[in-house]
Amino acid sequence: MRDTIPHKGWWQLPTGPANTICDIDGVRVGHESVHAEGACTGVTAILPHAGDLYRRPVPAAAAILNGFGKSIGLVQLMELGEIETPILLTNTFSVPACATTLIKRAIGQNPKIGRRSATVNPLVLECNDGQVNDIQALSVTEITAETAIANADGEFNQGTVGAGSGMKTFGFAGGVGSASRQVKLSGDSIYSVGALVLSNFGQQADLRVFGRLFPDTPRADLDDEDMGSIIIVMATDAPMDSRQLGRLSRRSGAALGRLGSYLGHQSGDIALAFSTANVFERDSANTHATLRLCESRMNAFFKAAVEATEEAILNALWHATPMSAYDGSLLPSFRTHLTPKEDTPAMPG
Amino acid sequence: MRDTIPHKGWWQLPTGPANTICDIDGVRVGHESVHAEGACTGVTAILPHAGDLYRRPVPAAAAILNGFGKSIGLVQLMELGEIETPILLTNTFSVPACATTLIKRAIGQNPKIGRRSATVNPLVLECNDGQVNDIQALSVTEITAETAIANADGEFNQGTVGAGSGMKTFGFAGGVGSASRQVKLSGDSIYSVGALVLSNFGQQADLRVFGRLFPDTPRADLDDEDMGSIIIVMATDAPMDSRQLGRLSRRSGAALGRLGSYLGHQSGDIALAFSTANVFERDSANTHATLRLCESRMNAFFKAAVEATEEAILNALWHATPMSAYDGSLLPSFRTHLTPKEDTPAMPG
Amino acid sequence: MRDTIPHKGWWQLPTGPANTICDIDGVRVGHESVHAEGACTGVTAILPHAGDLYRRPVPAAAAILNGFGKSIGLVQLMELGEIETPILLTNTFSVPACATTLIKRAIGQNPKIGRRSATVNPLVLECNDGQVNDIQALSVTEITAETAIANADGEFNQGTVGAGSGMKTFGFAGGVGSASRQVKLSGDSIYSVGALVLSNFGQQADLRVFGRLFPDTPRADLDDEDMGSIIIVMATDAPMDSRQLGRLSRRSGAALGRLGSYLGHQSGDIALAFSTANVFERDSANTHATLRLCESRMNAFFKAAVEATEEAILNALWHATPMSAYDGSLLPSFRTHLTPKEDTPAMPG
Amino acid sequence: MRDTIPHKGWWQLPTGPANTICDIDGVRVGHESVHAEGACTGVTAILPHAGDLYRRPVPAAAAILNGFGKSIGLVQLMELGEIETPILLTNTFSVPACATTLIKRAIGQNPKIGRRSATVNPLVLECNDGQVNDIQALSVTEITAETAIANADGEFNQGTVGAGSGMKTFGFAGGVGSASRQVKLSGDSIYSVGALVLSNFGQQADLRVFGRLFPDTPRADLDDEDMGSIIIVMATDAPMDSRQLGRLSRRSGAALGRLGSYLGHQSGDIALAFSTANVFERDSANTHATLRLCESRMNAFFKAAVEATEEAILNALWHATPMSAYDGSLLPSFRTHLTPKEDTPAMPG
Repeated sequence: MRDTIPHKGWWQLPTGPANTICDIDGVRVGHESVHAEGACTGVTAILPHAGDLYRRPVPAAAAILNGFGKSIGLVQLMELGEIETPILLTNTFSVPACATTLIKRAIGQNPKIGRRSATVNPLVLECNDGQVNDIQALSVTEITAETAIANADGEFNQGTVGAGSGMKTFGFAGGVGSASRQVKLSGDSIYSVGALVLSNFGQQADLRVFGRLFPDTPRADLDDEDMGSIIIVMATDAPMDSRQLGRLSRRSGAALGRLGSYLGHQSGDIALAFSTANVFERDSANTHATLRLCESRMNAFFKAAVEATEEAILNALWHATPMSAYDGSLLPSFRTHLTPKEDTPAMPG
Repeated sequence: MRDTIPHKGWWQLPTGPANTICDIDGVRVGHESVHAEGACTGVTAILPHAGDLYRRPVPAAAAILNGFGKSIGLVQLMELGEIETPILLTNTFSVPACATTLIKRAIGQNPKIGRRSATVNPLVLECNDGQVNDIQALSVTEITAETAIANADGEFNQGTVGAGSGMKTFGFAGGVGSASRQVKLSGDSIYSVGALVLSNFGQQADLRVFGRLFPDTPRADLDDEDMGSIIIVMATDAPMDSRQLGRLSRRSGAALGRLGSYLGHQSGDIALAFSTANVFERDSANTHATLRLCESRMNAFFKAAVEATEEAILNALWHATPMSAYDGSLLPSFRTHLTPKEDTPAMPG
Repeated sequence: MRDTIPHKGWWQLPTGPANTICDIDGVRVGHESVHAEGACTGVTAILPHAGDLYRRPVPAAAAILNGFGKSIGLVQLMELGEIETPILLTNTFSVPACATTLIKRAIGQNPKIGRRSATVNPLVLECNDGQVNDIQALSVTEITAETAIANADGEFNQGTVGAGSGMKTFGFAGGVGSASRQVKLSGDSIYSVGALVLSNFGQQADLRVFGRLFPDTPRADLDDEDMGSIIIVMATDAPMDSRQLGRLSRRSGAALGRLGSYLGHQSGDIALAFSTANVFERDSANTHATLRLCESRMNAFFKAAVEATEEAILNALWHATPMSAYDGSLLPSFRTHLTPKEDTPAMPG
Repeated sequence: MRDTIPHKGWWQLPTGPANTICDIDGVRVGHESVHAEGACTGVTAILPHAGDLYRRPVPAAAAILNGFGKSIGLVQLMELGEIETPILLTNTFSVPACATTLIKRAIGQNPKIGRRSATVNPLVLECNDGQVNDIQALSVTEITAETAIANADGEFNQGTVGAGSGMKTFGFAGGVGSASRQVKLSGDSIYSVGALVLSNFGQQADLRVFGRLFPDTPRADLDDEDMGSIIIVMATDAPMDSRQLGRLSRRSGAALGRLGSYLGHQSGDIALAFSTANVFERDSANTHATLRLCESRMNAFFKAAVEATEEAILNALWHATPMSAYDGSLLPSFRTHLTPKEDTPAMPG
């Protein structure tokens, strides 16, 4: 059942059927949450297609909006323009456990890896959930990551779940969100862009929702500085090459701006984008026959990317349940505080 | 006299005394407009300090938000992290004339250039004013550029003036705008960030001003696609090195997002930032004693950069007069269309 | 008639028929030299194909090995991954004149440019020939550039000609050089890589030719520091996309290293690469059917790129005639000083 | 006792006293090797200074020469321009174990990490030692990494030791090598540049040592393609900022070229550089008084960086002992095959 943040008139493009990243055919998402004794964390897995990604990588690119982040896998992704494992999201200190899972899984499927074949490039991105989760306890294990991958499905929960369990967005609870947009080109060809975010950034005083401020909402924290981050994963079925996907992923910064973010110093803001078109068996021929989107057609996709990212973040807030922070304070629910202060800035008359 | 767009509560940081880039001590701005027979264009010059920039370059950096632009000088600026000529803004096809002026001017001041000394790196950025100006006529001459530099002063006009003469912003007239913010660090040290924009981007249907849409405003154009661009120049008196200035300049993308932009395909969106601190006579010693801002203090400057950029664009709109487009249509004034449609998107109840 | 530097055993890959960049089908090169009264300079034009490049751009990429350079056009080239004008090479201060020629020429062929169509991105790269040419005189005019383009042909001279007229390489005369290599993939498909350099870098004491030093050769200059640069243009008929061409162009740094360069501070070392495959009428369809080279096949092209670049630089030296420097000194011919000192470094044991 | 590859006349700059990276005051290196039952691997640790790197990070930068690599930590290093943990080198699949050690070690020293303080950015780089080591066995543990750090000292072994145990360079055994150069500026100020490499790249047929080929040397392997990589770590006591260190690190590509490399497709070639000058207690003041090297003085350091890197690779070969590959073949010693074929390429007469 579709349940996304209500709005009228703010966005321009139509959503896909599920209004999630799974509107891109073949993409699946799985969570595994670890909720116990100080632990409130987990792993979220995004699988670009159902096959073996090492043998059939997807075209991809990344944008480092603010590189205060501890991911693994981006250097090779940017060089080769492809993703060759599932994409795992988790907390900052669990990147190694997730990476090991991806390495072992790839070896299991391709026993020549590291010997006769090249090694494999695990792709893991992270945010710091230390406000809710006891991050120093390293509660995520290799098995947590395996399970998240095994749970991957075309339907998935949003909010405080999986890697998003302990995340905080603009002072509210909320980690995983998703949305999608459709792009119609001339001649009735329709493509989709989906976004999934692991959202853990922003301070309440800066938040703007549909252009309105939240000046009186109870503050969840009084930190002087944002210590969060956001990971944005975009998928499309349009036949973009890696350079084009890089352009797409860079648009996510505009979505953060719309919500009031200024890309804080400590916020590791990283976007990546992949296409499900033009996927081939590795090394199966000297050349591959591909389709490439005409560059000027990118314009409509840029708008779709900004809208999907903005709504995905709002959906992370929309679906979250209140969480108790590690220090005893409460991360409130956005949904129950949603009436914004009425006297939004007046226009000069 | 200070005249900037009225607002209440949208921004958080205090402005400087003039609320322009000239609030950064030593920075001056000059215009020369070319308004005649199809020509509606010009040059705007920004001088980081009053001395010889070739001998005393300023630390600087650039962010290529969307590289659909035809500037000269950015490659060396990014390698060496410095600016060694005035910064000239003009229309797309007048970059060569402006660059020649900068070369000749530098040679005039330093006759060894290109012989015993290194060559000089002219810095010219541009937007396409072809909707108002007959850009193919190449009406800007080397003298136009010289005059703009000669006109540089601590006070300057905004709107449809200098390089901004024929510019269009979200369907309205308006090119040059500026604003500033103050940043107070612990211990009462106060620094400033100023922004000056050459704004020529956006479509009216996408515009959000203080979070409100303009759905019923008369449309100036019905183009399917934005053909504009924006150049953002930031200045600060904080002692940032080139890497830090790069981080500062990258925040401008969030400001574009706040106004509704999605960084359109054809929009050459380029930001640069310079500091007036740590300026030294070139090659005068093996090492220079400098100050460097503590990295975590950057956070407050990031917010200042976003606010100053957002307001600079709105001030470009605020100060513009209506312009007749080259094809006979009219670019309306933003100021006279300022009452937004009231039924902005409602929040769910 | 083919005349290239003799060698045995240093390189591994076969050359193309002409051993120049024109071995890539459709690529043409033209020079116009300006040799008069202190002027010893010019323009060299590289045309990727015979058609209208604005309407049929070629996939391309660039590598900024050392950004101490004053080119125009690279920012957009890197964003869009394509070249849409002829590539012009000239002296540092003549970039504006050449850019204006490219702008006017594109408008002449496409009168909507800057009005209904996007503007055009002129591509001009440069080295400082101030050691031989009176660079401050700005002797290159728009007509020089037009003539170089008009002179473009499948055969062209090398050495001290066109843009290379006043160039210096490792203390010897010599500016323009070229070479090519063939790459044979499985199944007998053969592709080519060509390189053309505008070579103006290096100091004689650092030069290594086929691994041998030139310790006793008369020094042409006693400068403490290299003030030169090198522009490297690669062409291939292999179906590489922009990202792959970026990888290809970055290999040129290894060629500079082989010759003894350490990429000196003031040396603007810039490489670009284009492919003549996958060229389409701009905006003629939503998607284009393309071929893309399998990534692992890039390996052989990397070796080809290094060999072609290294030989192109040596051919610039091989073909040059001695030149009188602007200050009365002589840039000697490499060819007549070619016997290296015998006691090259001995191996131990 | 100093033992480095003999040479005469190939290099120009003086070495430091030890001719290793430890000639930069305060830098220490430690190994821990894992040699047992199919395992032939390990960890090498580089400590920029003796203090707590999280509280006193060193200025740093990185150059991705070829991003076919699986490091962790480079994204944040490039954003913030600093290193805040020891630098660990290991095999490709042991990056997670090493990263976990760095995380736990930093938490142990700074218990607020991830809670009240920001998280920590572990820095681990890698090459694939799968030709000698059973890399799929993941033999490196967190304890291996801890021990390597604990072993750090101003003297260290080179060759097939620590992370270099199972490495192969141009078909010979050899992994860890180091060298240093001194740079004398005007006024008798002397600085040093040191390099340490984890060398695992190149094919024997391509090798050039002091400009000479090795055409008849027994081949260790007949692979069509290099599957190796090289990690280059540079240190200097010159007061370079992050941007300048980036320029320094990019010069390493020229060193690879001198040895015959063409930066093969699968070779993850990554360089980083740090300075031991300008190190401050994090967040201890709004601004720090620093020294900054004059940009034009960088030129001499560029030559030093190329020479130190080239010699470091040769020293990795020089110190290595023959190793049995995992498949039963032998990686020979370079030192015992050192007489090159005499008929190196002749110069034309």
